[in-house]
Amino acid sequence: MSECSNNKKTLMFPKPTLERLKLYLALLLQEEKEYISSDEIAKKLKITPEQVRKDISYLNFVGKPKVGYHIPSLLNELNELFGVDVTDNVIVVGAGGLGTAIAKYKGFKRIGIDIVAIFDNDEDKIGTFVSELVVLPLSELQRVIKRFKVKIAALCVPKESAQEAADLLVKSGIKAIWNFAPAILHVPPGILVENEDITRGILSIKHMLEKNK
Amino acid sequence: MSECSNNKKTLMFPKPTLERLKLYLALLLQEEKEYISSDEIAKKLKITPEQVRKDISYLNFVGKPKVGYHIPSLLNELNELFGVDVTDNVIVVGAGGLGTAIAKYKGFKRIGIDIVAIFDNDEDKIGTFVSELVVLPLSELQRVIKRFKVKIAALCVPKESAQEAADLLVKSGIKAIWNFAPAILHVPPGILVENEDITRGILSIKHMLEKNK
Repeated sequence: MSECSNNKKTLMFPKPTLERLKLYLALLLQEEKEYISSDEIAKKLKITPEQVRKDISYLNFVGKPKVGYHIPSLLNELNELFGVDVTDNVIVVGAGGLGTAIAKYKGFKRIGIDIVAIFDNDEDKIGTFVSELVVLPLSELQRVIKRFKVKIAALCVPKESAQEAADLLVKSGIKAIWNFAPAILHVPPGILVENEDITRGILSIKHMLEKNK
Repeated sequence: MSECSNNKKTLMFPKPTLERLKLYLALLLQEEKEYISSDEIAKKLKITPEQVRKDISYLNFVGKPKVGYHIPSLLNELNELFGVDVTDNVIVVGAGGLGTAIAKYKGFKRIGIDIVAIFDNDEDKIGTFVSELVVLPLSELQRVIKRFKVKIAALCVPKESAQEAADLLVKSGIKAIWNFAPAILHVPPGILVENEDITRGILSIKHMLEKNK
């Protein structure tokens, strides 16, 4: 049923396809049955079944006629594509509202993310608990990154401190920054930055509401 | 310098252009000088200057040769496009980690978002403070929506309660749901849903790290 080419990791997925494959992954993680059709996926995500089939064909994965895709097999493919089958240790820098929310978020485990530590430079926060994690001072950063082989850091500090914190993270051995601060970070080549701008979603809503006026 | 066509709101912006225009807006909000060139924007966002010029040309907006775009004028155009010049009252439903972080987030004001209330059904949370807002019971929903002419709700409840909460919001008069719950919501036609999946960014990072192994 499913056939996986060995060179999958070197295949180029168009970015919109990759974005939709993430949505399929999120959707399938919620399903409890064994099979799902492209029509069902399409309906739930408000796209066309043709689009769904085309996207999934990039995985060299095919459905069973009249039955659909075998969910556990398709999940395996998607898990492998996104590296969800490998658990990554992640640290959170900044124990404010957003950093705390991320450290507490329960949905990361199922996508292979383990939040192992949270840091802040505020003396009042250091030593307090966020779920079962103790807020650590930034002086502990390098040790924790090494000890837990951490490659990814979620950066949740104010805009003003973002570049300084990013520099420190890179110096301490971090390979990828998941940036929640509303700042454009400058990093050396080879360091990944994924900007998570929490205002983007609401801008889409405002745009649509304006347009429909 | 800038010329704005009257039918802008009916113009169709390609989705990727719209996404990048949001990034330009976020970037320009951080600039304090008067002019910026397409080269500078391109460099900061790691795209090509041609792309920047093409995107901005959708606004019927042109830069000054050798000087660049007049930032206040370009901001005006972008603000109008995204309805940032109009302030929308928004409510938050769910006073957990994420809901609290959103209610406290200081970056919304500058994009025309005013969080006016936060709700929860947990007796222990009702009556407590999140910044200057008191957590209200869901029984107050309809009154607040009407009183503050609220069209947008940020839904920050657990997956299990998401659909029920969405139904209640629609029934109470909400026109757009900014959905942070990892659930596919079913809503009547005409109701906007913008899904904000906090795991998407980290999936991109994991995919890139896997690919570069």
